[in-house]
Amino acid sequence: MGNIFKLEKEAEDCKARAGILYINGTEIPTPIFMPVGTYGTVKAMLHSSLIEIGYKLILGNTYHLYLRPGLEIIEHFQGLHNFMNWKYSILTDSGGFQVFSLQSFRKLTEEGVEFVSHLDGSKHFFTPESVVQYQRVLGSDIMMVLDDCVEYPAEYGRVLEALERTLIWAKRSIQKFKETEPLWGREQYIFGIIQGGTYPELRLKAVEEMLKFDFDGYAIGGLSVGEPEETMYEMTNICTERLPADKPRYLMGVGTPQNLLECIERGVDMFDCVLPTRNGRNGQIFTTRGKINIRNAKYKFSKEPIDPGLDNEISKNFTLGYLRHLFNTDEILGLTLATYQNLAFYKWLVSTAREKILSGLFRYWKNNLILNFVDE
Amino acid sequence: MGNIFKLEKEAEDCKARAGILYINGTEIPTPIFMPVGTYGTVKAMLHSSLIEIGYKLILGNTYHLYLRPGLEIIEHFQGLHNFMNWKYSILTDSGGFQVFSLQSFRKLTEEGVEFVSHLDGSKHFFTPESVVQYQRVLGSDIMMVLDDCVEYPAEYGRVLEALERTLIWAKRSIQKFKETEPLWGREQYIFGIIQGGTYPELRLKAVEEMLKFDFDGYAIGGLSVGEPEETMYEMTNICTERLPADKPRYLMGVGTPQNLLECIERGVDMFDCVLPTRNGRNGQIFTTRGKINIRNAKYKFSKEPIDPGLDNEISKNFTLGYLRHLFNTDEILGLTLATYQNLAFYKWLVSTAREKILSGLFRYWKNNLILNFVDE
Repeated sequence: MGNIFKLEKEAEDCKARAGILYINGTEIPTPIFMPVGTYGTVKAMLHSSLIEIGYKLILGNTYHLYLRPGLEIIEHFQGLHNFMNWKYSILTDSGGFQVFSLQSFRKLTEEGVEFVSHLDGSKHFFTPESVVQYQRVLGSDIMMVLDDCVEYPAEYGRVLEALERTLIWAKRSIQKFKETEPLWGREQYIFGIIQGGTYPELRLKAVEEMLKFDFDGYAIGGLSVGEPEETMYEMTNICTERLPADKPRYLMGVGTPQNLLECIERGVDMFDCVLPTRNGRNGQIFTTRGKINIRNAKYKFSKEPIDPGLDNEISKNFTLGYLRHLFNTDEILGLTLATYQNLAFYKWLVSTAREKILSGLFRYWKNNLILNFVDE
Repeated sequence: MGNIFKLEKEAEDCKARAGILYINGTEIPTPIFMPVGTYGTVKAMLHSSLIEIGYKLILGNTYHLYLRPGLEIIEHFQGLHNFMNWKYSILTDSGGFQVFSLQSFRKLTEEGVEFVSHLDGSKHFFTPESVVQYQRVLGSDIMMVLDDCVEYPAEYGRVLEALERTLIWAKRSIQKFKETEPLWGREQYIFGIIQGGTYPELRLKAVEEMLKFDFDGYAIGGLSVGEPEETMYEMTNICTERLPADKPRYLMGVGTPQNLLECIERGVDMFDCVLPTRNGRNGQIFTTRGKINIRNAKYKFSKEPIDPGLDNEISKNFTLGYLRHLFNTDEILGLTLATYQNLAFYKWLVSTAREKILSGLFRYWKNNLILNFVDE
């Protein structure tokens, strides 16, 4: 495993970091947000629009791709990049979260996890080893280990059990990773996942144990599952406090603009979340001046650009009035423009955070911006 | 009214024509196909994608825009171009066809047509004059007169009555057009519509009478409503035989690739149809090698580009296998790629027809290409 991360600067008044990820010839400045492309497409977006906004690292879901189109097809196409015609980087999750959240039935054993497909009820069995192998087939640039996710709230005993299982599985994952090679001529990297629920001592134990394996990066998992935001921030802080400076830190499944800013402040480098895409499709627009519910009748006559604070043709040149009309008539372009705006905003958010970290003004900027996103 | 059309060449062995439409500073080579943008958006397409393909003239529906967002809003935005942020040309239909095809209730009088909205059952009344005024508000580059469309089959008496009404309405339309001015600083042009059903003598009468008004162009209406294709071709031929060479000819609501080729051969310059967009969203893909039903399981493993015969990034670089997967998972990108391909194909079809007309090879090319589109 190589070193894929270079730390450029850490803020003096907080733990915010600016860095660069080097992945298969692509440089990805951090902090970074990764749009979610569940089935090999970021919903409602052309690939060229993602590139236009500046996204060079997107997420794919192993669980979903395993079910549809199925790995046989992805293998036939020699990996997910070829299958979906995406030239830049892809991170795939392990399926651990989906098995935890989408299944009515799942059975955990030491060996792995048995579950039924949410699509057709068919039975499947994932092991740490099989999930590494699936991600070899997918050929993602960054793969994640299979973990045991716990619901919130959960008893200490259940969280401890899940953590221990996750640690054993991490060891088996990295073993399998070392025994296998990339299939499609693209280097692959592997991240470990820190579990431990909302118990500080378990998070500490998780970090300590995971650091024994030399992962290419470390993810913080099992958060944003219903716990209070302050708890999420506290757990994140406990992890980043102990994670090594020279490895990227990825907070999984987070979150709102506020969440991103708070966790960048606490030393996180990478984020993914369905929020900007899913909420965009529901008419919630994130802009540099705050959140907008585009279905609101008050935008009927609005000639205001979607977001005059962003420098792209869509945010600048389409109006709120037109976007509302598109939602009102159930036009697909409405979903596309809203998603475009939200992803452009998230890109602006992390890119500006990076600039401000480099210029030493991150906290000042963050504390001001966050006022636009206080829930009314 | 100015002369917006220049005839460049007419084929020697048929009536196919190559020309140029000059509309508000935009040159539009003919034959041309106009994508349908019912509610101020061509469904599932970014405007930038339309421009990328080469479309500079799209269609809007007066009836639909009148109902949603409503003309009050379009007026507030100073016309449809501004409202939808479209810089090139727009043709709007008159609503005659929608009133005819979408209404459970309509009441024709000499004065106009009363109908109930297909959305909420509210009552509305269109007159030839009001429809011109609506299109002044829309600010379309080309407006159409209100006509009385007849179902197929229809008795001679009913078709004659509708034709006579259409002629009287045409006179009133052009009167109103002359009495009014564009509202938004963009020149507007007006086309008459030739009715007459499937009765040759009524079509002849319609052309003769319509030519008494000096319209900027002439549309052939009331076809593609269920009559046999041969009848449509015959009626088209009767009209183009008598229409003046120096005015553009627009066959409304047509059609399949075969229909376009056959009617270009018969001297038509302009077409519009929902077929490439609607059928695209249903998984029917038009390509230079023929039609494809992308849901067919045989494309599961297909690494073939969507259309290697077209020179754009989407047709060349995305595979049939990926497109099928997108339809299989109900992904919006599937609708977008299919629509993009179909519109790129239609653009290729009319552009290539034009080239072949100019080089004298139209009929030879057409007779070969059409074999790809024979229904199995």
